[in-house]
Amino acid sequence: MTRRSTLPDRFELHPQLAADTHPLASFALCELRLMDDANYPWLVLVPRAVNAREMTDLDAGQRHALSDDIDRASHLLLDVFQPFKINVAAIGNVVPQLHVHVIARYEIDPAWPAPVWGRVRAQSYSPETLVERVNLLRESLLT
Amino acid sequence: MTRRSTLPDRFELHPQLAADTHPLASFALCELRLMDDANYPWLVLVPRAVNAREMTDLDAGQRHALSDDIDRASHLLLDVFQPFKINVAAIGNVVPQLHVHVIARYEIDPAWPAPVWGRVRAQSYSPETLVERVNLLRESLLT
Repeated sequence: MTRRSTLPDRFELHPQLAADTHPLASFALCELRLMDDANYPWLVLVPRAVNAREMTDLDAGQRHALSDDIDRASHLLLDVFQPFKINVAAIGNVVPQLHVHVIARYEIDPAWPAPVWGRVRAQSYSPETLVERVNLLRESLLT
Repeated sequence: MTRRSTLPDRFELHPQLAADTHPLASFALCELRLMDDANYPWLVLVPRAVNAREMTDLDAGQRHALSDDIDRASHLLLDVFQPFKINVAAIGNVVPQLHVHVIARYEIDPAWPAPVWGRVRAQSYSPETLVERVNLLRESLLT
């Protein structure tokens, strides 16, 4: 049996997503990660589907599981941060691996009312704030 | 029996969405509409759910139906326009009625690789081009 060396045959997180986000939890289909931008409570869902680039690369069962994971991530943000609005987006123009942004928005956040991309420079969490934020989100998932 | 006059008890398209888009088709859950911006092939899905503002306002069956409608709209764009990428987004910071953008993106379009919002001014279709575009999309839905 030969193996193709150019395409991964198991799920691997794209290096850019690994660099920009921190691990939070494994949901039914997706890895849940925290975007390293303290400007907004910003989650990223990455389906563990090999070589998926578009939502249309998922089968119906996977798409519905993605919808359920988006719902769970949205409720997590609503419960923990009480935002004014949730933004959900699969863009992927730069990083080709399918990933979905789930972002808590406030009328006083630095990009409001525009979408967050291209507005203000990302603010990395300090180590202390990152640990606090990750623990807060993980604990809320357990309750 | 009294009726509340402040909240609609049946689905009505938000006036801003009605002004910015043209009707294309009725999908299982959503109204499918064409954004009046010739810069990008840009579809908008509006779930016929009363007072829905967030995806979390939908029940699981509605969310899965929305996923199916997004899949159908995405395949329509892929079939008709062969884009480089599909962008899917539920933002709703300005127009509160839940609606999902499904946008065909090209590496040569005026906002690439940024998301489309806030980049270049919308270009309304000319009447002739609008009729042609609407007919093209409607015919593709029939095949």
